[in-house]
Amino acid sequence: MKKYSERSREELLVLKKELDQQYADVKALGLKLDMSRGKPGTDQLDLSMGMMDVLHGNADLRCETGVDCRNYGVIDGIPEAKRLLAAMSEVDPENIIIYGNSSLNVMFDSISRSMTHGVMGHTPWCKLDKVKFLCPVPGYDRHFKITEFFGIEMINIPMTPTGPDMDMVEALVSEDEAIKGIWCVPKYSNPQGITYSDETVRRFARLKPAAPDFRIYWDNAYCIHHLYKDNHDFLLEILGECEKAGNPDMVYKFASTSKISFPGSGIASLAASKANLEDFRKFMNIQTIGHDKLNQLRHVRYFKDLDGLHAHMKKQGQMILPKFELVEDTLERELGGLEIGEWTKPHGGYFISFESMEGCAKKIVAKAKEAGVIMTGAGATFPYGIDPKDSNIRIAPTYPTLEELGKAAEIFVLCVKLVSVEKLLETK
Amino acid sequence: MKKYSERSREELLVLKKELDQQYADVKALGLKLDMSRGKPGTDQLDLSMGMMDVLHGNADLRCETGVDCRNYGVIDGIPEAKRLLAAMSEVDPENIIIYGNSSLNVMFDSISRSMTHGVMGHTPWCKLDKVKFLCPVPGYDRHFKITEFFGIEMINIPMTPTGPDMDMVEALVSEDEAIKGIWCVPKYSNPQGITYSDETVRRFARLKPAAPDFRIYWDNAYCIHHLYKDNHDFLLEILGECEKAGNPDMVYKFASTSKISFPGSGIASLAASKANLEDFRKFMNIQTIGHDKLNQLRHVRYFKDLDGLHAHMKKQGQMILPKFELVEDTLERELGGLEIGEWTKPHGGYFISFESMEGCAKKIVAKAKEAGVIMTGAGATFPYGIDPKDSNIRIAPTYPTLEELGKAAEIFVLCVKLVSVEKLLETK
Repeated sequence: MKKYSERSREELLVLKKELDQQYADVKALGLKLDMSRGKPGTDQLDLSMGMMDVLHGNADLRCETGVDCRNYGVIDGIPEAKRLLAAMSEVDPENIIIYGNSSLNVMFDSISRSMTHGVMGHTPWCKLDKVKFLCPVPGYDRHFKITEFFGIEMINIPMTPTGPDMDMVEALVSEDEAIKGIWCVPKYSNPQGITYSDETVRRFARLKPAAPDFRIYWDNAYCIHHLYKDNHDFLLEILGECEKAGNPDMVYKFASTSKISFPGSGIASLAASKANLEDFRKFMNIQTIGHDKLNQLRHVRYFKDLDGLHAHMKKQGQMILPKFELVEDTLERELGGLEIGEWTKPHGGYFISFESMEGCAKKIVAKAKEAGVIMTGAGATFPYGIDPKDSNIRIAPTYPTLEELGKAAEIFVLCVKLVSVEKLLETK
Repeated sequence: MKKYSERSREELLVLKKELDQQYADVKALGLKLDMSRGKPGTDQLDLSMGMMDVLHGNADLRCETGVDCRNYGVIDGIPEAKRLLAAMSEVDPENIIIYGNSSLNVMFDSISRSMTHGVMGHTPWCKLDKVKFLCPVPGYDRHFKITEFFGIEMINIPMTPTGPDMDMVEALVSEDEAIKGIWCVPKYSNPQGITYSDETVRRFARLKPAAPDFRIYWDNAYCIHHLYKDNHDFLLEILGECEKAGNPDMVYKFASTSKISFPGSGIASLAASKANLEDFRKFMNIQTIGHDKLNQLRHVRYFKDLDGLHAHMKKQGQMILPKFELVEDTLERELGGLEIGEWTKPHGGYFISFESMEGCAKKIVAKAKEAGVIMTGAGATFPYGIDPKDSNIRIAPTYPTLEELGKAAEIFVLCVKLVSVEKLLETK
């Protein structure tokens, strides 16, 4: 295929006419498709239905220490749930707390607690003139919304194929005491599906932050969420690396079963140094009477151990891999060689990240919407919703059926072509 | 029985000798009993076991609007759960939000949000020099712990048989803009079991606070938790009263099923004006991906409606009434007429409140502990853990078996007698 940029004005005009016609035809179908949300498909949820039966009306609902999980008590997680999520998080069970149904909620509370009470005895952030966070971009919109909500200034850090630009991270963190944290999705990152290299993880662990209360917010949301392609990614364990580097307290590591069992009805965890966990427990003891221990028990009895989790995730991976392949194949077939967009081919996680020509993302998303395909809002993957190049689009292939996804992907590439041609015509 | 205060020094010395012997005998038994915690008994929990079966592996897990409760979405509660908890809270379903497993957590978050973001656009409390809360005493220790945690100054308000001293509440609230809230357990109050009178509720609704962001924290924890004695208490609905009085936004009304289904695995709710709920939703949308909808569905399918809740609570009331009666009978039989203590005889809730002679509560609780009976710490029912008269002791009869409770109550009255005699001997 001839690159769009090398085509003459006349060629582009002919192409635009064709594309306009195709777009009009598609629009006339009145489709309603959704590629916007990182939601498991119904088939993935069906896989966990056995979980509904493990705690039945005649079951013994005591945990292994004999505590009745139906009653009050055990604020930081039953031992078997700690063991399960510690294995998943690759940490010691002593370094983990089990929370409720939302790791995002734990992250929010961590920021909120830091605002009102400070981190491990340091000045509460609400008493400081300025608090800043580093935000690898593109990234997860809900992270950025939390820091925005608390008036924390966000600084974009470009992502590279091996993780955030560590030269920039090191320089900023070491010189600016107002920088209190960085948002990371280190494995199968949202939205690019990038896994941080060993070197990146080690450089994180060796950071020398100016702020003693600087923390790495390590959201390991997709830790075992492989697509089971030929190979999958490996991520170095950060808690151990931080300890080795003499920075044991520098990281909060979050995880949950939201995209393993049921979104909204999973269990979440935080892994960190014992000193950090003490800080969290002081807060928890005031905040709540404890989390849902029956749901913890339900998860442990259903999945049993890390092998059980992996076996389950393999089935899920096999369900969604064809969806990723369908989108990747469509992109390659329709856009390959045209140089009007690039995209990622992740080994796991929930997203494909698409980079359009500069200044085209918003228009592409708007065009797709007009034709009945909902995409994540352009800009959502950047702090304040502002993508400086207006080029990143997040594609979420898991929720639609294969058939729906096929149609949606076709419409998407059509919109990419159309907006790109229009863009090129502006300057030809 | 002759009042202790009218006995001679010699009579008291003889009595003390007897009591000392009884105490030594009891101590020698090495008992381990617990009357400290407002926890349901195992028999009460067994009553809800059917709930474990309603969402089985073949069940349709969609809520009435067709949303798959297993997946993301529906942040503020599925409609049928709103209807159930609205009926329990005596409000319109449009005035309620369904939360996770802990209403205490909702209260904590309400204070935390007010600290960092303010109430409905007003100045965040963390930017103010001083924030104060009114605390009817004795009251619920976990409420006081929250306000203490946030550095909020707490002002004691004496409880009367009809609720907090409203003359004092009205005067303070109308003159001091730093007063931002009051903690209330309006029905079967913790620990006294007092239900606010209609007049008290109306005076609350008609408050003219100096602070526009003043809110009544109405923790209706025991709304349907009657003991099913001859009669039970009625509480006027506060949201409606506030609206009638032209103060629609002045109250947050909390409830949960923690002591209906399973503590720690129930569902919680907040009822308030639509303007307040909007304020809460803005926060929730950032804080979480939503609460556990499957647990909401489980509750609705099991209890069905308000009648179902009442029928269930009647069975629980019948289980715990004998426990309350046992404690009340023991107190009456052993302490009646001695004038060394007074106690409440609630129609519902989880506690009996005991007033010892001044300066005796800490010693009584310590004595009981030495003899193997754990009571709630003396002072816990007051802000900062300081009971100015050192006289209030909270008795929680629900968790022990009847047999254990009988022993514990006997030891308790023995300790009351012993400490009272010692106290009187100091001045005779």
